[in-house]
Amino acid sequence: MAVKKVGKQTVKFKNPPTVLSVASIVGPKEREGPLGNYFDKTVSDDIFNEKSWEKAESKFIKEAICLATKKALMNIQDIDYMLGGDLLNQLMSTNFAARDMQIPFYGLFSACSTLTESLGLGSKIIDGGYADYVVVSTASHFATAERQFRNPLELGNQRKLTAQWTVTGSGAAILSRKGHGPYITYVTTGKVIDLGINDVNNMGAAMAPAAVNTIVNHFKDTKSMPSDYDLIVTGDLGKIGREIAIELLEKENYKVEEDKFIDCGVEIFNHDCQDTHAGGSGAGCCAVVFCGYLFKQLVNKECNHILLVATGALLSTTSCQQGESIPSIAHAVSIKMVL
Amino acid sequence: MAVKKVGKQTVKFKNPPTVLSVASIVGPKEREGPLGNYFDKTVSDDIFNEKSWEKAESKFIKEAICLATKKALMNIQDIDYMLGGDLLNQLMSTNFAARDMQIPFYGLFSACSTLTESLGLGSKIIDGGYADYVVVSTASHFATAERQFRNPLELGNQRKLTAQWTVTGSGAAILSRKGHGPYITYVTTGKVIDLGINDVNNMGAAMAPAAVNTIVNHFKDTKSMPSDYDLIVTGDLGKIGREIAIELLEKENYKVEEDKFIDCGVEIFNHDCQDTHAGGSGAGCCAVVFCGYLFKQLVNKECNHILLVATGALLSTTSCQQGESIPSIAHAVSIKMVL
Repeated sequence: MAVKKVGKQTVKFKNPPTVLSVASIVGPKEREGPLGNYFDKTVSDDIFNEKSWEKAESKFIKEAICLATKKALMNIQDIDYMLGGDLLNQLMSTNFAARDMQIPFYGLFSACSTLTESLGLGSKIIDGGYADYVVVSTASHFATAERQFRNPLELGNQRKLTAQWTVTGSGAAILSRKGHGPYITYVTTGKVIDLGINDVNNMGAAMAPAAVNTIVNHFKDTKSMPSDYDLIVTGDLGKIGREIAIELLEKENYKVEEDKFIDCGVEIFNHDCQDTHAGGSGAGCCAVVFCGYLFKQLVNKECNHILLVATGALLSTTSCQQGESIPSIAHAVSIKMVL
Repeated sequence: MAVKKVGKQTVKFKNPPTVLSVASIVGPKEREGPLGNYFDKTVSDDIFNEKSWEKAESKFIKEAICLATKKALMNIQDIDYMLGGDLLNQLMSTNFAARDMQIPFYGLFSACSTLTESLGLGSKIIDGGYADYVVVSTASHFATAERQFRNPLELGNQRKLTAQWTVTGSGAAILSRKGHGPYITYVTTGKVIDLGINDVNNMGAAMAPAAVNTIVNHFKDTKSMPSDYDLIVTGDLGKIGREIAIELLEKENYKVEEDKFIDCGVEIFNHDCQDTHAGGSGAGCCAVVFCGYLFKQLVNKECNHILLVATGALLSTTSCQQGESIPSIAHAVSIKMVL
């Protein structure tokens, strides 16, 4: 078999997997944002009738997977693999969701870039001939992230203006060997990039260089240009990280049009009235924006070619306490409605 | 392309990847165990000249990867992907090791079964034609695991007799498209199994049903029997979990010979004098036993066919505090020296 490597970090699929169906489910704050109408389901209370926020996060994942499966007119047992992860220690919410699914499961961790890590590996599993159907899912939850990474919500701490707001929600996508698109055409796998940013309240600045590294290597590997894409979509750089990324891309001689370079963390909340400061974040942010909004843009032919680049800050509370800077990573998948 | 699925959970490789080289590096306690002479390198102090145990764990990973690369007469930049993980929150030790490697990186979490999750996905990436070389690595560290999951070491808490001792060490393996074996022939991906065990001091009992589920499904999918393997090797069931697994296999009508069904957690320590109670555990346990001991058994033709089944308990401290039982998973890879 011929090696499908294209350049250093990218693979091109011979039989591009189709994104067969998607589902997104969010909390009330995400419903109130500009993309609110695009999500399949909204929960009126973040606790989702569960006994803990972590169990609620797990339920978000299960519901998203079940809904995506139902939309594809399938049963969960028809799916060969589940791939995914979340931000919780030891992937608590994903592991407990996988317990209920009872299909072969690969747990992945790439912080907020886990969606595109999962889409990339899932696509390789499909195109490689190892599966007919794969479901990928990622999630995050404002309350579980705050108490694990920051402070108890009850303290009511003031947030810095550079900080981002973790999205409560989960997105799930079913990939298939056969279908009529949108197709995943290329995957560019990221390297860990760390330029020494150590402000945990400014993750956008830490992640922007990783996003740019992956995007530039994707352009080089595939011999493409920003103008080849209708949209370049980063995961959760937020307002500050997005601006840095655009500037860094210019330094690399890639000029992007402002309205064609969007960030899921910027799009999901209304910055004038939702008090989310630099924007949304979390492994669920990119997932619900892709599964809610972007997928519909592709299917409705509002746009044809998207470069989706989820971004992850690979810090832990321990690494910060030990004075470490914030290593970051970004994985890209190129998605086309019409090949 | 033909789908390479075999049965429900297994894939068979058309071009089985070769394990080109391996390296293992351990702490002093592991060096004193029965397999001590098989490891490539021993550190005299678990802190490994670093400022924290977590940074030491990360250094174990880097050294193992660098040594495996050197043994293969390669440079790290010749390798297409790094895959791996550890037990720390947000994979701290693996992410920081990946930062120094500067190659495309997939972070994986499957607790102590991350080695075979990585070998399985890495093999699919190779056989699928997406890479020529992949390095997989996993690690654990007694001191980082104790303080994250249990108690500060300084407390000197007494350990229960069913408890296991987290192995300090890391193993790395380079997979290649071309080579002369040992070959990875089949991969069976596990499902999350939870029979309701909630004693965090008895992980062997929690993981045994997951190991048996994967082993039985591997046998069924590949139409094989225990007698087809020279060794069936579980990851870290320990003494208690191993006995339960043998009993459960018998209930499924698979009779295994006691000396051909070994467990890395049982083999790595001397149970008469090392005070490790039910045996070793951790994502590094299976990694150093495979990369140190088992690989040499294969290459020296002491045995030809191994079923390696790393086992993982997918709990977190939060899930335990919330009264949850311990979901577990096991992934199997079948490895043959002569096809």
